[in-house]
Amino acid sequence: MSKNLTSRAEDYSKWYNELVVKADLAENSAVRGCMVIKPYGYAIWEKMQAELDRMFKETGHQNAYFPLFVPKSLFEAEEKNAEGFAKECAVVTHYRLQNDPDNPGKLRVDPEAKLEEELVVRPTSEAIIWSTYKGWIQSYRDLPILINQWANVVRWEMRTRLFLRTAEFLWQEGHTAHATKAEAVAEAKQMNDVYAEFAENFMAIPVIKGVKTESERFAGAIDTYCIEALMQDGKALQAGTSHFLGQNFAKAFDVKFTNNEGKLDYVWATSWGVSTRLVGALIMTHSDDKGLVLPPNLAPFQVVIVPIYKTDEQLEVITEKAKGIIKELKSLGISCKLDARTTHRPGAKFAQHELQGVPLRIAIGQRDIDNGTVELARRDTLTKDVIGMTDLVSKVELLLKTIQDELFSKAIKFRDTHTTEVDDFETFKTVLETKTGFISAHWDGTAETEQKIKELTKATIRCIPMDVKKEAGKCVYTGNPSTNRVLFAKAY
Amino acid sequence: MSKNLTSRAEDYSKWYNELVVKADLAENSAVRGCMVIKPYGYAIWEKMQAELDRMFKETGHQNAYFPLFVPKSLFEAEEKNAEGFAKECAVVTHYRLQNDPDNPGKLRVDPEAKLEEELVVRPTSEAIIWSTYKGWIQSYRDLPILINQWANVVRWEMRTRLFLRTAEFLWQEGHTAHATKAEAVAEAKQMNDVYAEFAENFMAIPVIKGVKTESERFAGAIDTYCIEALMQDGKALQAGTSHFLGQNFAKAFDVKFTNNEGKLDYVWATSWGVSTRLVGALIMTHSDDKGLVLPPNLAPFQVVIVPIYKTDEQLEVITEKAKGIIKELKSLGISCKLDARTTHRPGAKFAQHELQGVPLRIAIGQRDIDNGTVELARRDTLTKDVIGMTDLVSKVELLLKTIQDELFSKAIKFRDTHTTEVDDFETFKTVLETKTGFISAHWDGTAETEQKIKELTKATIRCIPMDVKKEAGKCVYTGNPSTNRVLFAKAY
Repeated sequence: MSKNLTSRAEDYSKWYNELVVKADLAENSAVRGCMVIKPYGYAIWEKMQAELDRMFKETGHQNAYFPLFVPKSLFEAEEKNAEGFAKECAVVTHYRLQNDPDNPGKLRVDPEAKLEEELVVRPTSEAIIWSTYKGWIQSYRDLPILINQWANVVRWEMRTRLFLRTAEFLWQEGHTAHATKAEAVAEAKQMNDVYAEFAENFMAIPVIKGVKTESERFAGAIDTYCIEALMQDGKALQAGTSHFLGQNFAKAFDVKFTNNEGKLDYVWATSWGVSTRLVGALIMTHSDDKGLVLPPNLAPFQVVIVPIYKTDEQLEVITEKAKGIIKELKSLGISCKLDARTTHRPGAKFAQHELQGVPLRIAIGQRDIDNGTVELARRDTLTKDVIGMTDLVSKVELLLKTIQDELFSKAIKFRDTHTTEVDDFETFKTVLETKTGFISAHWDGTAETEQKIKELTKATIRCIPMDVKKEAGKCVYTGNPSTNRVLFAKAY
Repeated sequence: MSKNLTSRAEDYSKWYNELVVKADLAENSAVRGCMVIKPYGYAIWEKMQAELDRMFKETGHQNAYFPLFVPKSLFEAEEKNAEGFAKECAVVTHYRLQNDPDNPGKLRVDPEAKLEEELVVRPTSEAIIWSTYKGWIQSYRDLPILINQWANVVRWEMRTRLFLRTAEFLWQEGHTAHATKAEAVAEAKQMNDVYAEFAENFMAIPVIKGVKTESERFAGAIDTYCIEALMQDGKALQAGTSHFLGQNFAKAFDVKFTNNEGKLDYVWATSWGVSTRLVGALIMTHSDDKGLVLPPNLAPFQVVIVPIYKTDEQLEVITEKAKGIIKELKSLGISCKLDARTTHRPGAKFAQHELQGVPLRIAIGQRDIDNGTVELARRDTLTKDVIGMTDLVSKVELLLKTIQDELFSKAIKFRDTHTTEVDDFETFKTVLETKTGFISAHWDGTAETEQKIKELTKATIRCIPMDVKKEAGKCVYTGNPSTNRVLFAKAY
C-alpha cells in the first residue's frame, strides 16, 4: 500500500492528500468542500476532544449547545463580524420541498415555504450566543459565564482541502462573558496557553504563542491570540486562536450588567476555538514517506500485535499470549489491538499499520513462543528489535514515552533550523524561496507594509510572539524604525 | 424558587415547560423551534452520550462523521424516505450574503450566489451515508460496516416543545451495512435491546420493546423496532427506534457487493437513533411538583454539600471536612459538589438543588462538626436523616443504588397500574379518558382500523410488543379476528 504514496520531496501537497485518503482518515464527499471523516480519522479527533474537554473543564468551563442557525438580523448585528463572514456563509431560505411538477420523481423547493427571515448556518456562534447571553446577565453576580460548545460550523470556502480547509468542519468554540476587561484578557490568554499545552504535550507539535496583527485578526475581535506551528514543508499553520472581543458583541446585542458599584456597563467577551484542522497539522508535522506517524498520546491505538502463524494451533497459542499482553498493557492505560484478521497476510498488515502510524508493532511467531521473545518495531524510527517477553510491557511503556518525547524534540529541531532572523528584504525573499520556514524580522507596524510584503512574497505576519524582546531595528521592507521583530511565513 | 412551579395535577404540560426552564436545562432560542441547551441540561446529555457511546463501542461500532448537507439529488433518491422528510426540511439555496443596497447596514442573499443544486440540512443521514458506502463496499470482505455518528439534525416541525420536539436536535444515528438479511435484522434488534438496557439501567425508565405497524414505521424502513415508555400523565413516548432497512437504500444508491459465492447482491442495511428527546423522557418519568428528580446514574453530580455557617472560621472547618468527604466519594466514583457560594443562603441553595434534582444533599453545620454528624437528605423521597460522619460514605454509596432502584421500581409500578387489557371499544374510550396509559387490545391488522381509532380517540398503536403472546381474539374496533394484542396509547 505505502509504496504507492507520493514522496514528500516529490510533491508535498500530493503526498498529504494521498496520505489522508490511503490511511483511511477522511475523504471528499458528494457535497462540495465537505469531507467524510472516516472511523480512523474520527478516532484521532475523539482523542483530541477528550483531552481538550478535560482541560476546559479543569479551567472551570462547562459545555452547552446553541442553535445551528443564526437569523440574518442577528448575524448582521456586529458589523465587522458580519462583514467577515457574509461572503462565505450557507443560507437557508426555505423549509420544505415538494414534488416537482415538471420532473416526475424529483423534488423542488416549495415556493410557498419561504422563510420570513433567512437563516445563516453558523460560521461561528458569537451572534447567536450573545443574543442569548443578553437574557442571562443582569448583574456582576451572573458573571463570569464560562461556556464551551462542541459543534459543526460552515464556511463556504472556495478552495478546500481535507481537514485543513473544509466548507463544514467540526470544532469547539468557547464563549465567555466577564465583568472586567482585565479578566477577559486573562481568559483569552489562558485559553491560548491551554491550546499551546495541548499542542505540545499531546500533539507533540511545538508552537509559538503570539498575537495577530490587525489585518489577521478575527472579524470582531480587539485582539487575537494564536498558536502557530511549522509544517514539514516550511509553511506555517495557525493551530488555534483565542480572541479578546472587548465589548463589541455586548454593544451589538445590548448586553449590560450592573457592576459591583451599582453602575451599568457592557459585558466583556472572549471566544476561542480549535477545529478538525488540528488533524491536518498532526499529519503534516510528524508523518513520512511511508505514511502516518502518530504521537502515542493521540494514537487511536498505541500498540498492535500481529500473529505470524502457519497452523491453527500456532494461532491459538499466539492469541493466548497476545491476550495476556493486551491485558497487562491495558492495566497501564496503554491501548493495544490484536490484528487477527485471517483475510490478510502479515506483510499486508505490517504495511497497513505503518501507513496508519500505529506507534508500536509487536509481531509474535512460533519461534518467539519457543524462545520467549517478541519482535518489537517502532513506527517513528522504522527500527525493530527482538526482546524478551518478560521485559515487553515495561519496554513498551518506556518506548511510548520516548516516542512521544522524540517526536516533539524532532519537531522543535526542525522548527529551530527553519527559523531565520533576517534584516534585509533580499535575504527575506531568498530565505522564503530556499530554506522556507519562519522569518523573524522587523516590521514598521503598518498594514500597508504588511500587505505589500504579502503581495511580493506570499508571506504573512503569523504573529507577534508573546515573549518577543524589545529590540530597536529597521523594518525589513521600508527601513522605518521598529521596536521588535515579528514572525513571517507562508501559511496554510 | 420551586414554589412557583405549576403542579402536575394543575397542568402537566405547563409544569413540564416551566420545569425545563426553571431547572436551567434549556430555553427557547431566537431561532423558531430551536432550543439552547444550557450547561446543566447539556451535562445530563453528556452523561447519556458517554454511556451510550461505551455500549455502542462494546458492540463493535465505531464513530465517524458525515456532512451536514444532503444534495437534493441524493435526498430524493430513496423515494419513501424523501417523501417522509421533504415536508419538513431546511433548504440551503445560497452561499453568500451581500450588503443590501436598499437597507444600509443590512445584508441580503446575494442573487449571484445561488447554488446550482439545493442542499437539504440533514433530517437523517441515510442518503448521504449510503451514497458514501457505495465507494466503500465491493465484496463481502468489506462487510459488515458498523458506524455511528453523533450529530445535529433538523426537522422543520411546526409545533415544538423543549427537548421533546425541536426543529434542530442532537442525536446519534447508527448506520450499518451487512451481507445478509438475517445479520441486518439481528443488528437492528440488538441495537433496540441496547437502547432498552440503557433506558432501564441508566434512565430508570421501564420500556416496552416492540415493532411498529406499517403506518408508524420510519420512512424507508421494512421494520421499525422501538422502545416505548410511559410518562406520568399517561401518555406514551417513543424513546428510541432501530430500523431494518432491507435493501431499500442499497437499491436507491446502487450499493452492490460480491457475496462469498461470487454473486452480486444488494447490501442490507440498518439505522438506529436516540436523541436529546430522552432528556424530556427522563424529566417526565421521575420528576415531581418540587422539580427535577434525577436517577443517580445520570445526574451531573450525585451529591451536593451545603455548609451551614455563621462565621468564616466555621466555614473553614466545614469546608475542610467537606473536602475530605468529596475525596472519599470520588475514590468510589461518586461525584460530589461543594456549594460554597457566599451569594446565596442555605435555604436558597436547598431549594435550587431540589429543583435541579440532585439525588443526595449533605448539610454540615457547626453542631454537626461538634457531634460528628451530618444531615443527609434524599431528593426522591424528600426525607432526611442525621447520621454519623463515619457511616456517611458507605451510606451515600448504598443510598445512590437504592434511589436508582426505587425510581425504576416506582416507574414500573406506575406503568403496570396504567396498562389495561381492553376488549370493547366503549371501555377503550373510557380508559383513555379516565385512567389513560397503555391499552392492550386486539386489532384486525389493517391500516384503516388503526387510522379510524386514531381519529376517534387520538390513540395510536405504539407497538406490537416483542414478547407478545399468540391469543385468538376480536379487534376492539371492528370485531374482526386477531391473533395477538397490540399496545395503544396517546403519545408524545
